[in-house]
Amino acid sequence: MPDALTFEDFPPGEVVEYGGLDVSADDVVAFAREFDPQPFHVDEEAARAATGGLIASGWHTSALLLRMNCDAFLMRAAILDEAGMEEVRWMLPVRPGDRLHARRLTLAARPRDGRTDEGEVEFLYELVNQDGLVAMTQRSLLVVKCRGEAGAD
Amino acid sequence: MPDALTFEDFPPGEVVEYGGLDVSADDVVAFAREFDPQPFHVDEEAARAATGGLIASGWHTSALLLRMNCDAFLMRAAILDEAGMEEVRWMLPVRPGDRLHARRLTLAARPRDGRTDEGEVEFLYELVNQDGLVAMTQRSLLVVKCRGEAGAD
Repeated sequence: MPDALTFEDFPPGEVVEYGGLDVSADDVVAFAREFDPQPFHVDEEAARAATGGLIASGWHTSALLLRMNCDAFLMRAAILDEAGMEEVRWMLPVRPGDRLHARRLTLAARPRDGRTDEGEVEFLYELVNQDGLVAMTQRSLLVVKCRGEAGAD
Repeated sequence: MPDALTFEDFPPGEVVEYGGLDVSADDVVAFAREFDPQPFHVDEEAARAATGGLIASGWHTSALLLRMNCDAFLMRAAILDEAGMEEVRWMLPVRPGDRLHARRLTLAARPRDGRTDEGEVEFLYELVNQDGLVAMTQRSLLVVKCRGEAGAD
């Protein structure tokens, strides 16, 4: 992995915007049928009565953010661990026809337990819709190799 | 929704176990190809070298828990809002061949802002594997109607 992104590539305070995908009714319904078959996620009529139209499962929107993260940097990063997520907030409905992109703020970056070969990076992710409104946020901690260590195993 | 589950159906301290599903390699790869195409989620060979075999995307395991929650109670609950998740922890790998079930502990239940028609219920979810080990946990807050209010709109 010669060009892997390492700890040094994620400086605190950095803001990066990336991604761009269109939410389709088919995708919303397909995800929800499999994982979250509540009426307002799978049934156009029921959704219109209850919430003004189909809305994507919150977990679907999280998965869409994940995909944009993979494409933008996760696939190239020298990741050792991603142990979980904090503060997943679904603030606005995501609907078919929405266009989403991601905004990533690096909240913190620190060596791990005083080690020089691994670091922890804390991100705040925002999922932004076509109106510039933030539909969801989540915070995550990634453990990544430091430069010179990436590709060492 | 005459038999909807309401605030009163989720007493603090209650522990409920439910669900039961088998994780398949096809499902692991299908989810990951769409949302999380890192090699150890989609490529059997790469996964064997890196992590001893395919592991499910953490977001896939969260989605499997969601499905068990829907089937066990979410579809019948008088939910007003589920605004997010706290402390999503992926502690152990979930692999093809694993059999998972859910354990739900009600951490707290309180009227919302002093209202008598809505309450907040806080759950800790555990996803338990065939060895009785907890592979992931997450904490969530649900806003539900109180009895007598369910079905009122």
